[in-house]
Amino acid sequence: MAEPVDRLWGHARIATLEPGSGDGALGIIEGGALAAKDGKIVFVGRESDLPDVTPKETIDCEGRFILPGLIDCHTHLVHGGNRAAEWEMRLKGESYEAIAKAGGGIVSTVSATRAASEDDLVQSALPRLDTLLAEGVTTIEVKSGYGLNPDSEVKMLRAAGRLAELRDVDVVRTFLGAHALPPEAEGDKDAYIAEVCDKQLPLVAAEKLADAVDGFCEGIAFSPEQIARVFDAAKSFGLPLRLHAEQLSDLGGAALAARYGALSADHLEYLGDDGIAAMAKAGTVAVLLPGAYYFLREKQSPPVAALRAAGVPIAIATDCNPGTSPMTSLTLTMNMACTLFRLTPEEAIAGVTREAAKALGRAARIGTLAEGKDCDLAIFDIEHPAELAYRIGFNPLWQRVRQGR
Amino acid sequence: MAEPVDRLWGHARIATLEPGSGDGALGIIEGGALAAKDGKIVFVGRESDLPDVTPKETIDCEGRFILPGLIDCHTHLVHGGNRAAEWEMRLKGESYEAIAKAGGGIVSTVSATRAASEDDLVQSALPRLDTLLAEGVTTIEVKSGYGLNPDSEVKMLRAAGRLAELRDVDVVRTFLGAHALPPEAEGDKDAYIAEVCDKQLPLVAAEKLADAVDGFCEGIAFSPEQIARVFDAAKSFGLPLRLHAEQLSDLGGAALAARYGALSADHLEYLGDDGIAAMAKAGTVAVLLPGAYYFLREKQSPPVAALRAAGVPIAIATDCNPGTSPMTSLTLTMNMACTLFRLTPEEAIAGVTREAAKALGRAARIGTLAEGKDCDLAIFDIEHPAELAYRIGFNPLWQRVRQGR
Ligand SMILES: [Zn+2]
Ligand SMILES: [Zn+2]
Repeated sequence: MAEPVDRLWGHARIATLEPGSGDGALGIIEGGALAAKDGKIVFVGRESDLPDVTPKETIDCEGRFILPGLIDCHTHLVHGGNRAAEWEMRLKGESYEAIAKAGGGIVSTVSATRAASEDDLVQSALPRLDTLLAEGVTTIEVKSGYGLNPDSEVKMLRAAGRLAELRDVDVVRTFLGAHALPPEAEGDKDAYIAEVCDKQLPLVAAEKLADAVDGFCEGIAFSPEQIARVFDAAKSFGLPLRLHAEQLSDLGGAALAARYGALSADHLEYLGDDGIAAMAKAGTVAVLLPGAYYFLREKQSPPVAALRAAGVPIAIATDCNPGTSPMTSLTLTMNMACTLFRLTPEEAIAGVTREAAKALGRAARIGTLAEGKDCDLAIFDIEHPAELAYRIGFNPLWQRVRQGR
Repeated sequence: MAEPVDRLWGHARIATLEPGSGDGALGIIEGGALAAKDGKIVFVGRESDLPDVTPKETIDCEGRFILPGLIDCHTHLVHGGNRAAEWEMRLKGESYEAIAKAGGGIVSTVSATRAASEDDLVQSALPRLDTLLAEGVTTIEVKSGYGLNPDSEVKMLRAAGRLAELRDVDVVRTFLGAHALPPEAEGDKDAYIAEVCDKQLPLVAAEKLADAVDGFCEGIAFSPEQIARVFDAAKSFGLPLRLHAEQLSDLGGAALAARYGALSADHLEYLGDDGIAAMAKAGTVAVLLPGAYYFLREKQSPPVAALRAAGVPIAIATDCNPGTSPMTSLTLTMNMACTLFRLTPEEAIAGVTREAAKALGRAARIGTLAEGKDCDLAIFDIEHPAELAYRIGFNPLWQRVRQGR
């Protein structure tokens, strides 16, 4: 008797991204089919190997490419205001003093975020989210970190959670209280880190508002010692760790993250050999953010060849944020990763699927196409997978599927 | 008695781009209204100054920004195939020899374009065109230059013309026979230039298939002397001139173009002081193409400060083409012009409206908002014009209007 399934996609080319399945680095299956039941993949393989199934609905892909739903694993999607006016002032040659006087910099985003209601934050984030979903994103990570006090950090994480109620997308929330020092801390970083550990984090953990804890380890933000205190506190709540590290200088943040068994270290332009070795040993994912590199006109790119040689998993993400990467395109991120960082298109594709899932600690459920995994798909009208990364400002999505629907 | 008009847009903020109208470099009118009749603008100004009109339809813009419809004044939108596979080979470290053996380079686009039917070319160009229209483009320039023989050049220009029948957009066609040397010319550039002047161009002119004539002046393409022959032939047919110049080296192409009274010189990374002075004197528009600069990872950017100081009009465009700028976003072009070339957002906006119209010789009809001009509008859901250039991979278009509809 034929097995009933909910949906069947046929006449497809499938990039499974699953090691050992299909051909080449992307695990490509020609003449493929994929079946879903109850939101899970129940078959993926050659159409000729398809078992006897009775689908409620059959979709003819007409030779299009099925990929795992795209994953944007590092964003600051929820925030108040934008920084277009400040950016314009800089381009017009205004001094940093004049810009600071006009309220520029991260402080302006903190003020706007604090002033916004939870609903304001949700409404302003939705157009950005919709732009990403239109490209085939099925999972997005969203960080706090512009509230910088207990109420506002909680508000940001609640707003991020609301996005998953309003749109069919999985939202992974990350607590980033240790993002920047708020103005009222008057330069006392240790006191603020104590607030993050003793007030913000316990509140966030008690309300189960975060799936992970992140920090910013940099001269302009927090020291490795301060980050270690945040990590210790996060561990006491059983929360996974991530870290913004080595973006502007090498403070050993990536090695610290690796030592703590963090899921990822992100940015990494100034990562040195010790950090690479530590990440490789710990299996910490390198999340590269070419949008910020581009927007800030950085000259030092992350050590991609050395990461590759050491076998460090490489993910890429938009870093969508108002100050340093006002970007809402994951296909453009793929192009920038190739053009600016010299990833191959295959690495860029893995970086927004399989490797991005690892950076979120979700590799068991998403990021590749295999039986038992969530049926999150992005189906593209392309003839060659490299086209996804090659085009600039073009969206080839044909169909987006979340949990089989 | 009230004057009947077709449509009235009210409660708008309007960036007229018209010198002497509105405030600042963009000519901004707050509390503005715009009325259209028979496809032309019959009123643009403050709502309080609106004469007594009876509109058939009224559109409440709710404070959104009306700009002139965007103009992409330099594209190779019509072409066969794509070069994603070649690009992937390069990123995987394959040698130029291996890529050439696999049929890479401009020759592959020429082969694919020659093999395509006129209808194939139209169908493959439409998704690219639709992407640009979705951002508010109302006029697009499209060049030939991948046919490189009489039949195929004519086929490309006919395909470009067909786009204007299938979509509500003004297509400006440019004959670019002198783009590259076809393989069958076996290195004889002079003989090929003779074919361009004596066979291709007369055919194109007789069938009225081109609005202008363009060439590529570069070591890898044609010398100033060869370009001058093309220009002389074009002048004999009364066709306006443009030139790809100083992209990879300074051969004096821009000065040549200026001497011939060309509408524009395009690329200009290696433009020197003599070229700038000649362009300023002739009023030749500098069309900057940051997408190609980005995609080719060029290090020398065009002399923007010197062009600005000399009063040379600056336009920007996608240069949409499969080899060096597979880009289909004019807002991203604006961001790249600011981020990579240090244009101000105001210059970037003028560069895709008023200055782009000059580069096409259409300044009397489009590019600014004034009574008597075509009612081509792009209405954006933004609070500050700089947002148009600031965001990366985000489309804030609310409504696109072509000839009042
Ligand atoms: Zn970040
Ligand atoms: Zn060109």
